[in-house]
Amino acid sequence: MATNTLYLVCDMINDLVHADGPSKKSYGPELARRKTVENTATAIAKARAAGAKIGYVRVGFSKAGMFKLGTWGTEVHPLLAPQAGDFDIVKHRVSPFYATSLDVILRANGIQRLYVSGVSSSGAVLSAAKDGHDRGYDVFVLDDCCCALSEEQHQAVIEQVKRMTTVTTSAQVTFHEEFQL
Amino acid sequence: MATNTLYLVCDMINDLVHADGPSKKSYGPELARRKTVENTATAIAKARAAGAKIGYVRVGFSKAGMFKLGTWGTEVHPLLAPQAGDFDIVKHRVSPFYATSLDVILRANGIQRLYVSGVSSSGAVLSAAKDGHDRGYDVFVLDDCCCALSEEQHQAVIEQVKRMTTVTTSAQVTFHEEFQL
Amino acid sequence: MATNTLYLVCDMINDLVHADGPSKKSYGPELARRKTVENTATAIAKARAAGAKIGYVRVGFSKAGMFKLGTWGTEVHPLLAPQAGDFDIVKHRVSPFYATSLDVILRANGIQRLYVSGVSSSGAVLSAAKDGHDRGYDVFVLDDCCCALSEEQHQAVIEQVKRMTTVTTSAQVTFHEEFQL
Amino acid sequence: MATNTLYLVCDMINDLVHADGPSKKSYGPELARRKTVENTATAIAKARAAGAKIGYVRVGFSKAGMFKLGTWGTEVHPLLAPQAGDFDIVKHRVSPFYATSLDVILRANGIQRLYVSGVSSSGAVLSAAKDGHDRGYDVFVLDDCCCALSEEQHQAVIEQVKRMTTVTTSAQVTFHEEFQL
Repeated sequence: MATNTLYLVCDMINDLVHADGPSKKSYGPELARRKTVENTATAIAKARAAGAKIGYVRVGFSKAGMFKLGTWGTEVHPLLAPQAGDFDIVKHRVSPFYATSLDVILRANGIQRLYVSGVSSSGAVLSAAKDGHDRGYDVFVLDDCCCALSEEQHQAVIEQVKRMTTVTTSAQVTFHEEFQL
Repeated sequence: MATNTLYLVCDMINDLVHADGPSKKSYGPELARRKTVENTATAIAKARAAGAKIGYVRVGFSKAGMFKLGTWGTEVHPLLAPQAGDFDIVKHRVSPFYATSLDVILRANGIQRLYVSGVSSSGAVLSAAKDGHDRGYDVFVLDDCCCALSEEQHQAVIEQVKRMTTVTTSAQVTFHEEFQL
Repeated sequence: MATNTLYLVCDMINDLVHADGPSKKSYGPELARRKTVENTATAIAKARAAGAKIGYVRVGFSKAGMFKLGTWGTEVHPLLAPQAGDFDIVKHRVSPFYATSLDVILRANGIQRLYVSGVSSSGAVLSAAKDGHDRGYDVFVLDDCCCALSEEQHQAVIEQVKRMTTVTTSAQVTFHEEFQL
Repeated sequence: MATNTLYLVCDMINDLVHADGPSKKSYGPELARRKTVENTATAIAKARAAGAKIGYVRVGFSKAGMFKLGTWGTEVHPLLAPQAGDFDIVKHRVSPFYATSLDVILRANGIQRLYVSGVSSSGAVLSAAKDGHDRGYDVFVLDDCCCALSEEQHQAVIEQVKRMTTVTTSAQVTFHEEFQL
């Protein structure tokens, strides 16, 4: 059982990744081409089977507009629906570590290994990788569960995170792999 | 207008301060004797009139039991009901500053002056005072809007916070007072 | 070997605890009466023998005046002299956790158990206890290695930290005791 | 006078940027080609003339080896020598914001505008830009005062920071420019 492991699914909310949401023209084409949502569903299922914990990061605000908490837009995409016992981490800025409950969740659950994916590659995912690495976690990035505005932009992030994380995919990941730098 | 001012109302939730809640035997007698809820209602009304922002800190968890989010127990006491535009700050530990959205709220709203009260005096209030002082905020404590398990315990906290905050009361407070150490 | 244990010696610097320093009239009498420096020397020796790591917290600034870094005033008291391999944690405010290297030291060394003492009881020690508790560390306070401006003030702190830490003394401590709340 | 402005010079220490240091083969060629040290000297002079504060970030450890504090290797490059009143910010990990004194320096000096440059572009500079942006600072990046292992790597970072910072150069910068996103 991957008891010291958490899979952090970043900003896979309807406003950002649903085909009917307001980002259908910005992130939509890349999400469809990369099958980011479907690959994330695969990875989440494998994480659950391996006994890893799941944390859903959601950017959200109380004010009206995009990313309004309590509306469809900030719910996790229905294909990736959270289950009882998963963690819900609301953030207001880019990094899942800044001004959120993530630190207390990681400490209280003895997490040492952190798998990360989501949108965008250069926003939440890169910040999670950098901040997690600084704090001493073994960070793994699930390449095909991420998405940026272009493949080039995504690849630039992968080049960067390779220096501090282990990069894998939804097909390869076991949630038991060794951390290698 | 006290535009750079926020009143942080700490843990005034039903599980802790309602006469019908599970803390009626622990904090109940002191809350009744000190009129903590009523005094806090007075202070909140004055804060709103002065144009200060209001932040409600609520300890809360997603698991079943006391302090469960989404239940009556973690709602703010009905006499102190939040209004649209107030801030909702959920915490998991004692200090309102640790692993919460408080930092982003204070920064995004240009807050420099922080009024604090709530339960318990030695828990959330003392931590908010100490952490706020460390971070360079001008901190004011509303003495009669706090409560501990005994008056002696509360007074010990007041003695401590006097060295780093300005102590006032719901009757005296204007939310425009000068910070004095 | 207490490999997951760190003893945090707070602000035992000449400006605050040396008999010839500028605090000889403020903290001096209580330090002498409580034998705080001598007791701390005993505790440090026991910590070293037990294999615990030692971290010296020092308040210090680059500007002229009291607490100036690089001067005698901010050196650790000669009876408590640091050794190679000990950690030096410079802070600018009250809590040893705020804006210091403490977090990275604790994480990088796998510390879970934190022993704390120093001056003042209500300043650095209380903040370290509260902040350490919030972050999930098992915190122990060494009562007779602390000092406040009066015994009454110190006792008020001990009453508070009892609720979240295990309180012990330089005579009793083994650095292997079980954490009990 | 740019009183609310700080120029954060990241990791311009001998071990990383001196032509005779251990990084002469890794960063050396790009540093020489881009004239990073010379450009930074220009920018520092302009920052001083504009009344901005200067903060030198230095990665450093107490243990023997590269980046050992107290040795030539962790001193700032002689062409960029700090002056009295500048800030010295020692870090242990990548981001200048994590487990350092930066937060207390920014708060205590009322800093709102943060200029950033240094090595490497994808390490300290990108982390400073991301973390500063999350915390609500207006962040400016001085392109020609940065350096990565290749121009391609540096440009990938510039593409990313463009989305959250204003990018300028040592020739153009006035330390009074308007922040534009």
